[in-house]
Amino acid sequence: MTRYFSEADSVETVNARVAPDADPRLAQVMSSLVRHLHAFVKDVTLTEAEWGIAIDFLTHTGQICSDTRQEFILLSDVLGVSMLVDAVNNRKPAGSTPSTVFGPFHVDGVPEREMGSNISLDGVGEACLFEGQVVDMDGHPIKDAIVDVWSDNADGFYDVQQPDIQPQHNNRGIFRTGADGRYWFTGIKPVSYPIPDDGPVGQMLCHLGRHPFRPAHMHFLVSAPGYHRLITHTFVAGDSYLESDAVFGVKAPLIVDFEALDTTQDGPRWRAAYDFVLPPST
Amino acid sequence: MTRYFSEADSVETVNARVAPDADPRLAQVMSSLVRHLHAFVKDVTLTEAEWGIAIDFLTHTGQICSDTRQEFILLSDVLGVSMLVDAVNNRKPAGSTPSTVFGPFHVDGVPEREMGSNISLDGVGEACLFEGQVVDMDGHPIKDAIVDVWSDNADGFYDVQQPDIQPQHNNRGIFRTGADGRYWFTGIKPVSYPIPDDGPVGQMLCHLGRHPFRPAHMHFLVSAPGYHRLITHTFVAGDSYLESDAVFGVKAPLIVDFEALDTTQDGPRWRAAYDFVLPPST
Repeated sequence: MTRYFSEADSVETVNARVAPDADPRLAQVMSSLVRHLHAFVKDVTLTEAEWGIAIDFLTHTGQICSDTRQEFILLSDVLGVSMLVDAVNNRKPAGSTPSTVFGPFHVDGVPEREMGSNISLDGVGEACLFEGQVVDMDGHPIKDAIVDVWSDNADGFYDVQQPDIQPQHNNRGIFRTGADGRYWFTGIKPVSYPIPDDGPVGQMLCHLGRHPFRPAHMHFLVSAPGYHRLITHTFVAGDSYLESDAVFGVKAPLIVDFEALDTTQDGPRWRAAYDFVLPPST
Repeated sequence: MTRYFSEADSVETVNARVAPDADPRLAQVMSSLVRHLHAFVKDVTLTEAEWGIAIDFLTHTGQICSDTRQEFILLSDVLGVSMLVDAVNNRKPAGSTPSTVFGPFHVDGVPEREMGSNISLDGVGEACLFEGQVVDMDGHPIKDAIVDVWSDNADGFYDVQQPDIQPQHNNRGIFRTGADGRYWFTGIKPVSYPIPDDGPVGQMLCHLGRHPFRPAHMHFLVSAPGYHRLITHTFVAGDSYLESDAVFGVKAPLIVDFEALDTTQDGPRWRAAYDFVLPPST
């Protein structure tokens, strides 16, 4: 066992310090983290000045966090780490609906609404009928599935970002399927928006020549007893940012054609039909 | 080029977003960071709960930072990253004095003192004569070398940690060598102490079964025009924590026998002799 630190044995020296009775999973995770962090420093021969910039960046990222802002989740998102953690934890059978990042804008405690309700409480935006079916891997309807949905408003902000402007629970709703597994409700056709880019993560994106936009999407959290819980979005086909989502959330099967409806009559202007296929929970 | 995110192509998808006109060094560093971060997530199959713990840990680490506390440097230190950054940036010829971490307790603006001064302004602790020579690779004395020193007090705290208790610049001094390259001053025999362990880094060490102690040491920053600047410590031989320094700072050539002096006469109780060998700057 190496006693003193050296460049060659840096990983072994640090990891040898973990006590034999430490939690085995913690020891595994931290040993791997040290191995990859040291490999990074060695690969790029990180300078002392760059190390200092990294310390300042991480400090600033922590200090800008608040009850309504989580800059470290944003950092994880734009580095593709959030999508990767989602991927390695949700390897699902072919034919099931793909998952994507949860994002920071879900809210607990939204009231369950009657199927068919309008969740656009401020009435601003282009009304859109969202409908489809929650089914199992054999295509059979799933009864009592909970369909929890949320989106931004017509200006690209979630209600929690504008508590003084938007009604509480604007563009949010929870619905429960009947025996036919069907869901339907009216919302708005979502719009693309930038992730908060006035902090260190936004500065980093700027230096990398990356834009902060997400393509327009509706969030869905679909769950039912006995089935794998699904966290996903549907994306508006044709959006300019589909291939450059700042947080890498887009997957091809989640892109939905929003169908223009006859606007000479009352009712929604768009229709977005999408079925969710849930594998059994393991 | 991959358009949408997948577990298999996660690294390429994220790194393909960097603009062609981004700073090449920034692009290199960030691409390597993404590659190693993703490899870490895949190697351990990081769970969503563990990702959440990591987000909370980083946030807490940032939020406990203040003008007098830098928890991210502490994190870098205990993971061996600080020593590694020092190592890859200070690969020096055999025979020169090894470097080690700078640490967070250096202060600018300390007055230059007359050679031979006593830097223990509170007079507490076991007086120790520090002396030696600053020489080049051929053993020739270096004139006008600046020897900047700092240590904890007898209770294991630096003056900046106890501004209401210790005199300003207690156990700090700056000395300039003459034509013989020699330095000598009186301080105290330093004592081992724990790094601040009441924050997230201390909790992490506790979970890993690691103690927070550093072996007793005197800090030296030795510089002279035309020579590679040396940041190092000398360590007290026999200290219990030499082989388990919480920040991995110990190197064998930096361990010094503190010689017990005749205490029947006035004068210091200990003597620590150490010569510093500086290679030319490149």
